[in-house]
Amino acid sequence: MSYRVGIINVTGFAGMEAARLLWNHPGAHIASVTGRSLAGQRLGEAFPHLEVYGDLRIGEEIEGDVDIVMSAMPTAASAAVCAPFVRAGVPVIDIAADFRLRDPKAFERWFGQPHPAPEMLSQAVYGLPELYAAEIRESKLVANPGCYPAASILAMAPAVKAGIVRGPVIVDAKSGISGAGRGTGGSFGYSEVNEDVSAYKIANHNHQPEIAQELAALTVGEAPRVTFVPHLVPMTRGIHATCYAPLMRDVSQAEVDDLYGEFYAKAPFTRVSKTPPHTKHTLGNNMCLVHPFVDRENGMLVSIGVLDNLVKGAAGQAIENMNLMLGMEQDAGLDLPAVYP
Amino acid sequence: MSYRVGIINVTGFAGMEAARLLWNHPGAHIASVTGRSLAGQRLGEAFPHLEVYGDLRIGEEIEGDVDIVMSAMPTAASAAVCAPFVRAGVPVIDIAADFRLRDPKAFERWFGQPHPAPEMLSQAVYGLPELYAAEIRESKLVANPGCYPAASILAMAPAVKAGIVRGPVIVDAKSGISGAGRGTGGSFGYSEVNEDVSAYKIANHNHQPEIAQELAALTVGEAPRVTFVPHLVPMTRGIHATCYAPLMRDVSQAEVDDLYGEFYAKAPFTRVSKTPPHTKHTLGNNMCLVHPFVDRENGMLVSIGVLDNLVKGAAGQAIENMNLMLGMEQDAGLDLPAVYP
Amino acid sequence: MSYRVGIINVTGFAGMEAARLLWNHPGAHIASVTGRSLAGQRLGEAFPHLEVYGDLRIGEEIEGDVDIVMSAMPTAASAAVCAPFVRAGVPVIDIAADFRLRDPKAFERWFGQPHPAPEMLSQAVYGLPELYAAEIRESKLVANPGCYPAASILAMAPAVKAGIVRGPVIVDAKSGISGAGRGTGGSFGYSEVNEDVSAYKIANHNHQPEIAQELAALTVGEAPRVTFVPHLVPMTRGIHATCYAPLMRDVSQAEVDDLYGEFYAKAPFTRVSKTPPHTKHTLGNNMCLVHPFVDRENGMLVSIGVLDNLVKGAAGQAIENMNLMLGMEQDAGLDLPAVYP
Amino acid sequence: MSYRVGIINVTGFAGMEAARLLWNHPGAHIASVTGRSLAGQRLGEAFPHLEVYGDLRIGEEIEGDVDIVMSAMPTAASAAVCAPFVRAGVPVIDIAADFRLRDPKAFERWFGQPHPAPEMLSQAVYGLPELYAAEIRESKLVANPGCYPAASILAMAPAVKAGIVRGPVIVDAKSGISGAGRGTGGSFGYSEVNEDVSAYKIANHNHQPEIAQELAALTVGEAPRVTFVPHLVPMTRGIHATCYAPLMRDVSQAEVDDLYGEFYAKAPFTRVSKTPPHTKHTLGNNMCLVHPFVDRENGMLVSIGVLDNLVKGAAGQAIENMNLMLGMEQDAGLDLPAVYP
Repeated sequence: MSYRVGIINVTGFAGMEAARLLWNHPGAHIASVTGRSLAGQRLGEAFPHLEVYGDLRIGEEIEGDVDIVMSAMPTAASAAVCAPFVRAGVPVIDIAADFRLRDPKAFERWFGQPHPAPEMLSQAVYGLPELYAAEIRESKLVANPGCYPAASILAMAPAVKAGIVRGPVIVDAKSGISGAGRGTGGSFGYSEVNEDVSAYKIANHNHQPEIAQELAALTVGEAPRVTFVPHLVPMTRGIHATCYAPLMRDVSQAEVDDLYGEFYAKAPFTRVSKTPPHTKHTLGNNMCLVHPFVDRENGMLVSIGVLDNLVKGAAGQAIENMNLMLGMEQDAGLDLPAVYP
Repeated sequence: MSYRVGIINVTGFAGMEAARLLWNHPGAHIASVTGRSLAGQRLGEAFPHLEVYGDLRIGEEIEGDVDIVMSAMPTAASAAVCAPFVRAGVPVIDIAADFRLRDPKAFERWFGQPHPAPEMLSQAVYGLPELYAAEIRESKLVANPGCYPAASILAMAPAVKAGIVRGPVIVDAKSGISGAGRGTGGSFGYSEVNEDVSAYKIANHNHQPEIAQELAALTVGEAPRVTFVPHLVPMTRGIHATCYAPLMRDVSQAEVDDLYGEFYAKAPFTRVSKTPPHTKHTLGNNMCLVHPFVDRENGMLVSIGVLDNLVKGAAGQAIENMNLMLGMEQDAGLDLPAVYP
Repeated sequence: MSYRVGIINVTGFAGMEAARLLWNHPGAHIASVTGRSLAGQRLGEAFPHLEVYGDLRIGEEIEGDVDIVMSAMPTAASAAVCAPFVRAGVPVIDIAADFRLRDPKAFERWFGQPHPAPEMLSQAVYGLPELYAAEIRESKLVANPGCYPAASILAMAPAVKAGIVRGPVIVDAKSGISGAGRGTGGSFGYSEVNEDVSAYKIANHNHQPEIAQELAALTVGEAPRVTFVPHLVPMTRGIHATCYAPLMRDVSQAEVDDLYGEFYAKAPFTRVSKTPPHTKHTLGNNMCLVHPFVDRENGMLVSIGVLDNLVKGAAGQAIENMNLMLGMEQDAGLDLPAVYP
Repeated sequence: MSYRVGIINVTGFAGMEAARLLWNHPGAHIASVTGRSLAGQRLGEAFPHLEVYGDLRIGEEIEGDVDIVMSAMPTAASAAVCAPFVRAGVPVIDIAADFRLRDPKAFERWFGQPHPAPEMLSQAVYGLPELYAAEIRESKLVANPGCYPAASILAMAPAVKAGIVRGPVIVDAKSGISGAGRGTGGSFGYSEVNEDVSAYKIANHNHQPEIAQELAALTVGEAPRVTFVPHLVPMTRGIHATCYAPLMRDVSQAEVDDLYGEFYAKAPFTRVSKTPPHTKHTLGNNMCLVHPFVDRENGMLVSIGVLDNLVKGAAGQAIENMNLMLGMEQDAGLDLPAVYP
């Protein structure tokens, strides 16, 4: 048996990455894909690396029966296309940001418009299995985390949960350009982006409330403030989130290593690294590498999370969630080493 | 059942890529790996993207019984480590150049030393399944093609075989830097190589006689001369071979498309592209994309072959050869879409 | 005294590069710049690296008197904006392709429209000083060469002029992405172009007739056929043209070295290199490095030309032409070492 | 008149960049250069982009009289080669770290060896003209700042001086690979570094005490703690230092903009940017772009400094210091726009 997956908006980077990864899934396969701008084309015609899919065509709508739906629509447009499936009881994974913030007011503030489906928010589970595996298994609507939040939350969760740090938490994140999406020209052209690093949306990126929400949920007592500054670096894939938080008390490196090791002992896709991790060691696979470092002299925890923004930060995470929702092995189809070098 | 594979010199890029690909092979697994400089370390300690291998350690020598051996030793050193296995009847795939040239004098001329094992040359088969699948199936010693020759020969073979072109054949090849190997500093440092293109070993690279040999083998009549000029371009993986040969007669694009389509109709890993192919569409997978173009006005065939130098140009090709030698499906373990973007 | 320069369409890469280089010119300065899309903005506001220009604003039209005009308009639109200046006797350098091909029918064939100002063609001089310095000095309308032709013609000119080669000439050129222009998204996005090499417009690029025209002009007897294949490589600046032509007779490397050395003995911006040159050694400066190599065994000349497509391939060449047209030193303002690494 | 400059160890990236920039200096020229490994070669033979220097050869020692010396020797070796010149009264600019830390004990702690010339420390001035222009003018021994400290200190100085922030200061810095030096292979090879971001020497880099020392010198009251984390990003040149410090009181963006604007009003090479600056806008030139941002909600100042690590972070800064020490215009030879794109 093989579950039938529908991908809405397969033509963005997240959608096409889901298609790449599902090709090798032992228990699921793509049944239908949509994508307005390229509708009518064969998937392999639009994207030559997906030529393996042969005659599968990009449609206007999901066609036929599917057992689960992944939406890679843009935020705010996604809820509307997810809604019919949610109502019909078809499990949905929303890769957009529509269902990540539990408070519709926060959505309105950060996205500049009212939440498109506030009545569905209560059903949604934040799809980070390292924190919510049990809830994801029971859910029919999973909000796939943002790429920056996935790396940042995984870097900080054990320390925040254990209460060894307080705010303000600073998240200085570096991202490859694919996070900006497919076919984005102008300021994301090769000539402009190559040999360049720059920050953008300083303390004003809509991934900030997502990080803050999840760190707050792990905190006993006052939620830490979060200052989040994203940067673009000249590479295609990869996120490196460097997080800083004052230590509440004097802890040793060994103590923190134990804490993190225990926290992620059963997580198939988060591994604690003893040395500063490289984004390149996650290229194309679903791993998040975490490295906590105790700057004892300054009483500061520096904790790093790295991952491939299109895999653990998007499509791979969606498949991991799908596996849980459909009762398959958590790592089904995702047990692929990174492509290195 | 799963065949036991030994990898000699797993610590170079080709060896570590074989390890990456074998992780997902349904009918074979790594039993033992060697690598002098890092012997004693766990494979995942030396190369974090191979952490999936857990406790597997890099040894000094192949340990225990293996069903097949791949050697990723440097050329000229490889024959010596392959020899005991060949003599013992263990199938061997040599990723180095030791057994590619059939004429030991040609080896001596191009590599500056006598052939290390001339008595074994007669057993060796050139491991390009698009040309020699039947022979590879029967062989115990396969010479895995060089990365440049694989792309170049696949680009030209149908035209040469059909006799529609003559010499001189010009092969202008562009390669990513990983072809230079792991840990090669100095002139391959990032600062020096980034934002740079340069040619090297003009008409003097030891892949030239390999290309010439195989084109000659496909020719009825006089073998074409080959001028081969390799270039380094600033990317990690990928080879783009642009080949030029005068047409013997007036042929149409449609005729050449048919010729190429037919030639590769049954090849699982060479696909004829109707548009100029991108190296990036092969990143991490075993596909070679070929695009023949008829420059009718000038009576010239321009034919392009692109592939990932570490996969179809090295480790993936080795696994494809292994599959044939051990009687498995030709594409076992290699049916992975390229990682794009 | 300082000549007043007008730049039409300063907002493309060629135009803004002219502005960069003119900042340090001892005998000329920018008096007026135009650029429709950004008209009204300060130059330094639109392009922060040109902040040195202070209050200079981008206008709709050239304002005030100028002593010379450079047009960086798109081809076919350029002639119309150049015409009034040509008629008024103001020296014009056209960086577009409008006046490069001497035959208006060739223009029509390659650009798909009638030539916009055929009556001016007879006044135009092809602006490659290595071939036409005397004519450029006397001209009021100079057609600045294309980036690919500049590198290719300089690589082949001495050999063609000396009659030691014949056709077919093959030009395999590799270009950085800035050749595609500013703000070009989609297929020139970082994510798509990084880690990729591909050919485009095979034997169908409008720089081909330009190369053929100039090689023909150097030839006694039958003009050589030219097959031109451009490739994109992942870097911002740089062109590497690798040219191949059969030798007419047996010549030695030393003979060819002498021939090239003599040909360029007085050229301030073409230097013959004894080793394969690197594009990076020309980044940001006006040098073209040429390396002829005799592949004696195959009777083939391989000759390489490398340059920065925005400098010797566009804006630097325009300034070199300006210097000649206005009677200044040929290298005025251009004596800047390349930026390396 | 033109001052005669000696460069010790011209063969590293900083030394060769000084040679590049001095070529266009109106009041100084290179008289003698040294470099052990390449001694005897012409400068242009060793580094083709410096071919303009013609017959100038790399020597073992500074030869003949010079008016000023720049040392680009490695730290700890530099003091010894500087000492004879200091004693002879020849002005010296040390690009290494030997004279940056005023406390010899700090040197010993961070560099693992006793200070090589503690008796000279009192003569040394920290060569950041934005802070110490007057002292530099009077000094015969200037310690050129480190690349990370230059960007970090310039980003924070106005705020620290004004007392609007307190510690802990977090400096999250991203650097191109040229900071690692020339010919550094292995972990700085293209294949390993491309498509990768990683942190290194977390809270343990010897630029940390340099940043802390200078911020302390600007502070009234308790010196702020500094946590410094450097990262490597895949580009050749450029540093992007993102600095975070808690605000002491509620300040507006306008207030901070004024503060920074005033602080740098007369600095020719530090400019306050109203938008997040790009490292690419400083490539090849001596500018530092600074952007302070008030994260009012979190009471945090985020301040960014970007520069070219080989220019304002090394050789350009050295020339700026030379200009001051020899009584020339501060921007002599440095008024070159950045190379963009």
